Amino acid sequence: MNAITAPQGFVAAGVHAGLKSSGKLDLSIVATADGNPVSAAGVFTSNKLAAAPVQVSRAHLADSGRTAAAIIVNSGNANAATGTEGATHAEEMCTITAAELGCQPSEVLVCSTGLIGIPLPFDLLAAGIPQVVAGRSPTGGEAAATGIMTTDSMRKEIVHTGSTFTIGAIAKGAGMLQPNMATMLAFVTTDAEVEPSELQSLLQHAVDHSFNRLTVDGAQSTNDTVLALASGLAGPADPLELQAALDAVCYDLAIQMADDAEGATKTVIIRVEGAADDTQGLHAARSVANNQLAKCSWYGQNAYWGRVASEVGASGVDFDPELFSVTYGGIVTAADGVAVGYDEAKMAEYFEGRRIEITVTLGLGDGAGEVITTDLSHAYVDENMGKS
Amino acid sequence: MNAITAPQGFVAAGVHAGLKSSGKLDLSIVATADGNPVSAAGVFTSNKLAAAPVQVSRAHLADSGRTAAAIIVNSGNANAATGTEGATHAEEMCTITAAELGCQPSEVLVCSTGLIGIPLPFDLLAAGIPQVVAGRSPTGGEAAATGIMTTDSMRKEIVHTGSTFTIGAIAKGAGMLQPNMATMLAFVTTDAEVEPSELQSLLQHAVDHSFNRLTVDGAQSTNDTVLALASGLAGPADPLELQAALDAVCYDLAIQMADDAEGATKTVIIRVEGAADDTQGLHAARSVANNQLAKCSWYGQNAYWGRVASEVGASGVDFDPELFSVTYGGIVTAADGVAVGYDEAKMAEYFEGRRIEITVTLGLGDGAGEVITTDLSHAYVDENMGKS
Repeated sequence: MNAITAPQGFVAAGVHAGLKSSGKLDLSIVATADGNPVSAAGVFTSNKLAAAPVQVSRAHLADSGRTAAAIIVNSGNANAATGTEGATHAEEMCTITAAELGCQPSEVLVCSTGLIGIPLPFDLLAAGIPQVVAGRSPTGGEAAATGIMTTDSMRKEIVHTGSTFTIGAIAKGAGMLQPNMATMLAFVTTDAEVEPSELQSLLQHAVDHSFNRLTVDGAQSTNDTVLALASGLAGPADPLELQAALDAVCYDLAIQMADDAEGATKTVIIRVEGAADDTQGLHAARSVANNQLAKCSWYGQNAYWGRVASEVGASGVDFDPELFSVTYGGIVTAADGVAVGYDEAKMAEYFEGRRIEITVTLGLGDGAGEVITTDLSHAYVDENMGKS
Repeated sequence: MNAITAPQGFVAAGVHAGLKSSGKLDLSIVATADGNPVSAAGVFTSNKLAAAPVQVSRAHLADSGRTAAAIIVNSGNANAATGTEGATHAEEMCTITAAELGCQPSEVLVCSTGLIGIPLPFDLLAAGIPQVVAGRSPTGGEAAATGIMTTDSMRKEIVHTGSTFTIGAIAKGAGMLQPNMATMLAFVTTDAEVEPSELQSLLQHAVDHSFNRLTVDGAQSTNDTVLALASGLAGPADPLELQAALDAVCYDLAIQMADDAEGATKTVIIRVEGAADDTQGLHAARSVANNQLAKCSWYGQNAYWGRVASEVGASGVDFDPELFSVTYGGIVTAADGVAVGYDEAKMAEYFEGRRIEITVTLGLGDGAGEVITTDLSHAYVDENMGKS
């Protein structure tokens, strides 16, 4: 759908540089149409084993005063745990891109996704970057979205049309779901006019309420990166509308990731209400979302609420064993801390769907938190045994 | 082997009270031979959804000044999330046991293990308790060890013979490994003479260095309980020897649990060395042990060190990407933060074994931590889907 090039002022492309033996696209660019830098923002993994491209992009945003003219991205190799050589390679990717575009290297951001600990096949990238830059166009958004995919089964794209502005976004991955293909990446463009510092604030808020509430397996990749570019060509936007739109775009991409998470059969939304405060609500929801036993029960289409309640009790949040309730899609399975009879046929029917919503009410306060996750299936184990 | 009755002054028994439809033993007792209370200690789950028997045992230890004459234990039902009725049932189990033994109810400790959220079939227990009390004998240790099993495939027992004392112990479970059969329980007897407060301190230390370092899936049960009774019949013991012996006994049981964890094909010992301090070392080791992706790679017999290093980097401990190394059974896979070539045939051979030792060295300080865990297999998913 060419989502990333839907806002005014952006071009994109995707090519096969040779990193993927399958012959699929593995090198993408998103750039401003005129090659000039615009407002840019980034949110990066907090993993201390942050990959070389994460470190380079962070530095470039700082050096350029949060502006950028392009994002260059390869799939098929994470360039993580690759030492000083890896850092040089990430920097070189920006230098080559900048030379082709006619901007400064510090105005290029770089991402990589793939296997950890394997040296980057840099020659392939050095040859591929001029090709992908040359191929950039307003209709290259779909190819760019394809070129960042690893084991994703479908492209993840969305366009939001606001009253005065457009937002386009693409993403790949679902947490560190894959054995050798790690990482979530998301790139957002808009033609709204927004200062770099405001764009950073808007993006951070959107990420906190979307990708940071998506957990497939509790692991944070070495390469997780979300970047935003704002061309300003549509003029100023209402800040509240822009924030809401950016939040919605990122939330939609997070759900797309969970829906496409390989090995998963369910997208599960855990909501904890009545917590002492929002922090506790979110922490409890996250604990349930990362509980292997609960995840297996969802795969088994089994409303075993005891697992869910036990995990909340173990999570450390304020908890009264006589006050909690647990519902699945509105079907009450426990109330006031004890089992409640329910229509098993109705529950079985509910579990036939892809989306499962579980709400735990603690009865203690007004705090609430929500996390998006998936089940734990045989296919997940297959995917992550690392033999494939 | 009648481990729990090996120390002087203890009797035990196990009977089928009817909670398990399989006809297997499901009610056990461990008691002093003369029915008089002796020094007792307990370490309990910190889950705020603590089951009724946990709450009753905690209260009884406090009321009795940490003395007890017996431990009564049922398997087949956890008596957790069962409301005020559940609390009454747990108290009644002690009252009936005490009446039969001729001691005070507060001198009886109680445990349950099984399904959460299902009312206890109390009539079966009211009828079974007099039987199990009547059947107690110095040769009943094996039956008691059998009666606490749920889906364990083998009894877990150990006897340690010290210079002046004997320790006997039994256990069941492996974390919250099972879908409907939760919980780890361990009971320790000794004939060493030791004051209640000292016994509590000794037990807490042993638990901290054994069961609390075993994690199959990161979940803490509503019913986890470790209890110790000391008859004193062997007279005073050297405190250092007693602590070391108790530590070794509990560590051995923890390894037995991991070795018998259903659905697991590997017992994996994660050791983090060179951490800033021991707390960080233990935290990092625990993070790796609970990482689903790493667990799948062990099942796949795949030395994917990048997963392990990434999880340490994400765990929040001090970490230098250029200093860490990772070894599997002494085979170096990464050093100074980058990949190191190794003999793949040798690694494949190493992965054929049940026990896998992974050491991550951070190169930052003298801190270290070790955690025992298992892999994540297809059979684990089968066990925990809850359809069986």
